[in-house]
Amino acid sequence: MSPESPPSMSPPERLAAHLAEDMARVAALIRARMSSEHAPRIPEVTAHLIEAGGKRLRPMLTLAAARLFGASGANPVRLAATVEFIHTATLLHDDVVDESRRRRGRPSANLLWDNKSSVLVGDFLFARSFQLMVETGSLRVLDILADAAATIAEGEVLQLTVAHDLAIDEATYLKVVRGKTAALFAAACEAGAVVAGAGAAEQQALAAYGDALGIAFQIVDDRLDYAGAAAVIGKNVGDDFAERKLTLPVIRAVAAASPDERAFWERTIARGDQRPGDLETAGAILARTGALAATAAEAAIWAGRARAALAGLPAGEVREMLDALAGYVVARAA
Amino acid sequence: MSPESPPSMSPPERLAAHLAEDMARVAALIRARMSSEHAPRIPEVTAHLIEAGGKRLRPMLTLAAARLFGASGANPVRLAATVEFIHTATLLHDDVVDESRRRRGRPSANLLWDNKSSVLVGDFLFARSFQLMVETGSLRVLDILADAAATIAEGEVLQLTVAHDLAIDEATYLKVVRGKTAALFAAACEAGAVVAGAGAAEQQALAAYGDALGIAFQIVDDRLDYAGAAAVIGKNVGDDFAERKLTLPVIRAVAAASPDERAFWERTIARGDQRPGDLETAGAILARTGALAATAAEAAIWAGRARAALAGLPAGEVREMLDALAGYVVARAA
Repeated sequence: MSPESPPSMSPPERLAAHLAEDMARVAALIRARMSSEHAPRIPEVTAHLIEAGGKRLRPMLTLAAARLFGASGANPVRLAATVEFIHTATLLHDDVVDESRRRRGRPSANLLWDNKSSVLVGDFLFARSFQLMVETGSLRVLDILADAAATIAEGEVLQLTVAHDLAIDEATYLKVVRGKTAALFAAACEAGAVVAGAGAAEQQALAAYGDALGIAFQIVDDRLDYAGAAAVIGKNVGDDFAERKLTLPVIRAVAAASPDERAFWERTIARGDQRPGDLETAGAILARTGALAATAAEAAIWAGRARAALAGLPAGEVREMLDALAGYVVARAA
Repeated sequence: MSPESPPSMSPPERLAAHLAEDMARVAALIRARMSSEHAPRIPEVTAHLIEAGGKRLRPMLTLAAARLFGASGANPVRLAATVEFIHTATLLHDDVVDESRRRRGRPSANLLWDNKSSVLVGDFLFARSFQLMVETGSLRVLDILADAAATIAEGEVLQLTVAHDLAIDEATYLKVVRGKTAALFAAACEAGAVVAGAGAAEQQALAAYGDALGIAFQIVDDRLDYAGAAAVIGKNVGDDFAERKLTLPVIRAVAAASPDERAFWERTIARGDQRPGDLETAGAILARTGALAATAAEAAIWAGRARAALAGLPAGEVREMLDALAGYVVARAA
């Protein structure tokens, strides 16, 4: 373990300390590329979101994946910034789609400016991300990230079209989660391995790690939307309920519902007739039926899969940190 | 002239006839790639817009640019589909931003479905366009189109932030037009030349042609928004006025305004206090002050620049058609 990363640090903090130099270059590159000669609204909106913090997990995954194979420098940094730009663009568009009012503990951009700015600045950041990828000169990386961008959008559209539908099963939920979250985690990891010159099996192992980590992460997020505190998740608890999303806790609770509970979900999620106190009732049902515990257990399974995917990768400090990160992501659910 | 293109056809019809075989392949590729295994909403929304017609000018430009240098086949077809996907994505997002109700003579997608679907399906089509470009294997083409995508978004954001501002000058208007329209025209032409193996000077000449053609096209569009008929432009006349956009006709009219006219523009465009009959008054002012005629003259200047850019390119039927197209685009303003 490096002298600068004492064991008391959390896994993302350890990763951030280990990758500090490259992460500073990522931050500088993001600042440089979010500028616009003609449209100052672009850096204003982007800075609001980017400077609100966020854990920068995705760019760290790219840098860590490259570092596993001894690579650092310009191309991993470009890719890490690419991944963060794609993530930021999707957040801007998600907040329009979800009519969100908070993001990362601040008022959302669509609220501070307007939906139009969020849509167009998101488009700009998508385009910037592609410019950055092109600079790596790697067609394989472009392929991976273009596929991820398509999968993300597909997952978001799927989520939109299956919202409010109590018949949604866990397989459909998993497709949505793979799209909206895991695709970018997987691509972030895989692309880092590719620019580092890793072999095909190692690239695949990192993609599998990112996929499983992303799924665990999103399942935990969906659990926290019922069981968390706003301070932890940076958005309002109950957003998913208000948006009538069929997330895993609700899917599990619907599957085990008594007739009264079934009527409750029909009214609040399917018909959207929500009244004061409904969110608390939902939380109580989720706790009593064991749906929250089952959701946490499912996240732990995916974290285990993420750890297992690391087995064939070069042993050492970075692999240890990635392993610890999988445990940490799930511990958020405790 | 080919037997299938009699002189009575319009320039876009002649181009379409000349490129019919490749355009059929472009249409087939678009249909194949707008599909989604998981989210049927994606092809529904895309088909609504794509099958409404549109002249498919941009993909024809790509094919024509490649054909100038004797190239046709898989890569020009991929690029042409790429360009049409980017265009379609921007239309979906524009209609959300402009709160449009009509597009290509049909109700707009944001009206038929919702803004969310338009945002996310647009994102999907952007991602699909990048996947298609990657398949060409040309980093230079990726560079050109990623730059164009960034310029488009920048132009749209600039347009948003300068709307309602009577102080906007023609230089700012030109930046907006270069972004929202000319960047994709230029990239469509340049990318076609690149995959055809054209030299640097020829690539630049085609980029210059596309840039000038796009500017002429948009100036004409902005004129038609006051002087056209809905049947010609496929959207509602007066949309720009309702959205209080500072387009060239208004910029010219404001520059030449009497005190009464100035007060009219202050009220309708700057303050947005619009009443029944205002659109007709605006049209009458634009006609009387010569602003419409001056706008048409400006478009003709840009069409002339487009034609001039063709001078160094291989002579023949395709170059003739591109030359005639520049004249045709301006004739829409007559």
